[in-house]
Amino acid sequence: MSKKLTSRLEDYSKWYNDLVSKADLAEQSDVRGCMIIKPYGYAIWEKIQSELDIMFKSTGHQNAYFPMFVPKKLFEAEEKNAEGFAKECAVVTHYRLISDKNNSGKLIVDPEAKLEEELIVRPTSEAIIWSSFKKWIQSYRDLPILINQWANVVRWEMRTRLFLRTSEFLWQEGHTAHSKKEEAIKEAKLINDLYAKFAEDFMSIPVIQGIKSETERFAGAIETYCIEALMQDGKSLQAGTSHFLGQNFAKAFDVKFANQEGKLDYVWATSWGVSTRLMGALIMTHSDDNGLVLPPKLAPIQVVIIPIYKNQEQFDEVSKVAHEIKDSLSQTKISVKYDDRENFKPGYKFNEYELKGVPIRISIGPRDIKNNQVELARRDTLEKSLISKNDLSEYISKLLNEIQHNLFNKALSFRNENITEVDDFEEFKNIIKNKGGFISAHWDGSSETEEEIKKITKATIRCIPYETVGETGSCVFSGKPSKKRVLFAKSY
Amino acid sequence: MSKKLTSRLEDYSKWYNDLVSKADLAEQSDVRGCMIIKPYGYAIWEKIQSELDIMFKSTGHQNAYFPMFVPKKLFEAEEKNAEGFAKECAVVTHYRLISDKNNSGKLIVDPEAKLEEELIVRPTSEAIIWSSFKKWIQSYRDLPILINQWANVVRWEMRTRLFLRTSEFLWQEGHTAHSKKEEAIKEAKLINDLYAKFAEDFMSIPVIQGIKSETERFAGAIETYCIEALMQDGKSLQAGTSHFLGQNFAKAFDVKFANQEGKLDYVWATSWGVSTRLMGALIMTHSDDNGLVLPPKLAPIQVVIIPIYKNQEQFDEVSKVAHEIKDSLSQTKISVKYDDRENFKPGYKFNEYELKGVPIRISIGPRDIKNNQVELARRDTLEKSLISKNDLSEYISKLLNEIQHNLFNKALSFRNENITEVDDFEEFKNIIKNKGGFISAHWDGSSETEEEIKKITKATIRCIPYETVGETGSCVFSGKPSKKRVLFAKSY
Repeated sequence: MSKKLTSRLEDYSKWYNDLVSKADLAEQSDVRGCMIIKPYGYAIWEKIQSELDIMFKSTGHQNAYFPMFVPKKLFEAEEKNAEGFAKECAVVTHYRLISDKNNSGKLIVDPEAKLEEELIVRPTSEAIIWSSFKKWIQSYRDLPILINQWANVVRWEMRTRLFLRTSEFLWQEGHTAHSKKEEAIKEAKLINDLYAKFAEDFMSIPVIQGIKSETERFAGAIETYCIEALMQDGKSLQAGTSHFLGQNFAKAFDVKFANQEGKLDYVWATSWGVSTRLMGALIMTHSDDNGLVLPPKLAPIQVVIIPIYKNQEQFDEVSKVAHEIKDSLSQTKISVKYDDRENFKPGYKFNEYELKGVPIRISIGPRDIKNNQVELARRDTLEKSLISKNDLSEYISKLLNEIQHNLFNKALSFRNENITEVDDFEEFKNIIKNKGGFISAHWDGSSETEEEIKKITKATIRCIPYETVGETGSCVFSGKPSKKRVLFAKSY
Repeated sequence: MSKKLTSRLEDYSKWYNDLVSKADLAEQSDVRGCMIIKPYGYAIWEKIQSELDIMFKSTGHQNAYFPMFVPKKLFEAEEKNAEGFAKECAVVTHYRLISDKNNSGKLIVDPEAKLEEELIVRPTSEAIIWSSFKKWIQSYRDLPILINQWANVVRWEMRTRLFLRTSEFLWQEGHTAHSKKEEAIKEAKLINDLYAKFAEDFMSIPVIQGIKSETERFAGAIETYCIEALMQDGKSLQAGTSHFLGQNFAKAFDVKFANQEGKLDYVWATSWGVSTRLMGALIMTHSDDNGLVLPPKLAPIQVVIIPIYKNQEQFDEVSKVAHEIKDSLSQTKISVKYDDRENFKPGYKFNEYELKGVPIRISIGPRDIKNNQVELARRDTLEKSLISKNDLSEYISKLLNEIQHNLFNKALSFRNENITEVDDFEEFKNIIKNKGGFISAHWDGSSETEEEIKKITKATIRCIPYETVGETGSCVFSGKPSKKRVLFAKSY
């Protein structure tokens, strides 16, 4: 395992790509912009899925599955949504291939097998789901409907990066229908809170919660709630969004319900999603120049044990102890791997698991056995220590917990150090150029100002935080009155 | 909940469709041939997934994810596989829509956004995966590779039926690469055994294991191992297949490895899959004219509790006991629902859970409380009994187990009664027409005979069972010598 990563300082973007590849997380495929998620990367994604799924279900949501194809007529029904995604969608036009008569062994699209109506590969599923909700909803008794689906979606991105922006990606998309406006807003906020909790508790990523500006809102939404995370290069990453859709989709698909008074009204909607992009956030928040750093709660392997030995006798002796430790840790639900491969040296293994971000590495040699101890290395701090074999399980349980919190606190300090209050546009430009991070500044609320600032600095409004104090002021760009500060940043 | 299902005798096919719809499992979508899997149906699929996933992982397989699109050039690389799927594949030709200038608010495919190379929506992923394996495999040290993916695939079927045959379906597909032929064959058989075990232990579906005839083999396989199940209408359903692919894909994608002597050789392959079709098998094996019957191990709700009451005081009294029972059952990992909806009568609820196949129904009224008992109804036998509240958890645990076995034994008896040994073609035609089921008959081994029999009777060779005794004989159709009996049937 060649350890050499490009350093973050040298080339952050190359560091990311190297890391994704060397930690065996994902790779480019032969299909433009589509990635292959390799087993180790997919194992992390499975942990993300599993924890989120528990959260969704415990708040009353049910999983279902809707077709991946959206007939063009349905796709275009909600005009803003259609407009937002039309530029980047894969279109199925034919349903058969035939042999190429001029080229033996090759196939061509059968011109006779043209679809009457083109099918769009879902970039998001509001259209197909609301055309179903129309059949499911007659009265207030049928509401709320709280659906989630785990699925693949396609957005034909021009510039792609593994996990962060790919033409096909995996995600969950929630779609809910409500009889009352307030209930739908509450749902959208509930999910945003849940996303924040997941990011902080499981991914150890501190996030800022808030709403999007009109420009950055989801196509077809009335309000988009978001969680934003700061990456180590000072760019912001949108980690999850939850949309209050008002009655837009109900109107587009004519979905009405009879309320308790028997009066017909349009249904209120939300939709929300997080995707394999979270993997990008996870990688960029914690990792270092030695490789991936994983929070214990999402690590497929939490502890790796590596034997140190010079001959078969020592190997047998060490293996016996390693298996004991493995069994004892497994009993307390810690996921442990004993790497007893004989054709790789300990140093090679050390590098491999450092690259792969395994939170705790234990090594055991004959001398350790004699002293009733093991050597333990923390991936987050790279500290090594000798630990007594007695009560090792308890020690490691606590340490995993400590690592989980340490990663969060480290990321939180970094994030907080990189929020700069700015009241002057020259300083704004200077900070964006030289420091990066979030700029907390007053904004006059207009899309024009937002657009101008973006043109000049490439920074956009990432989020209008819930928490901003109601301090009034003057827009950092236009000088017009502003009711609150918003967060600007360059973004992924 | 209107209970009225078409009876199986009256119209088996309509019974199936009614059941799928009324038990809220799935429905047709607005996309030709694509289904919507509704929450209750999806919850069963999740249980299937979860159990299979455990089995795959415990036999050393890892999950990963590969792109859903296959560039045409890769698709056509393995000729037989390509030929087998070319007739029924969805083809993406464009990547953008634009506004229709002649029709405001409508979209058309942008002729400028034509892909240089068409993309096929995967009907199966050998092509895309083997083009990756090429990069992953250099030496015998890289082998075996044991990969599985949970994914959606598309086969443009002309006649579709919910779960049984849909244009898009969900499945798992395993793809493995090996250095030795024998190891690959062993893998294909292992998976077929694992599928059989899953079908019998979890789905309570008895299956016959064997291999496919050449005609029925997977396109591109050397050998296809299968499990076949008999449905109540006497038709066979292929419930899972596992393929030994030889070196076909390795040759098509030029995937060689250096063996221990340093010599280059092509890699050996398998692939295997089960799909949402299993839902169809599950429904058709156990259900009756009252609705779905679910084996307890796959039932999203194993026990439903329904309160019987006349006034608020009785409701409160009954609810207290119901919650106690629910809590006590939940503690032993039994999944329980207490249906305390006030706007539905008990009779309506009884019908609903009968339709939905919930294995055990408990009802509790004031008199039951007085007598320290509950009324318990089994979905499989429709028997009711009064059971003491003492040790109810233990009683129910045992009963769930008994129901699981009873369903299997009932299906096994039915299956065994419907395997007919036949040595005469007139009798063959007669049995197929009037009795159905499997016909165990001698076959001369030729595709021509198979084809003729199919033309005349619509029956095909479902499986050449592992277990057939080496009894020689004469082909039931041609009279030519035969080495063993094979199983014919009409099929789904």
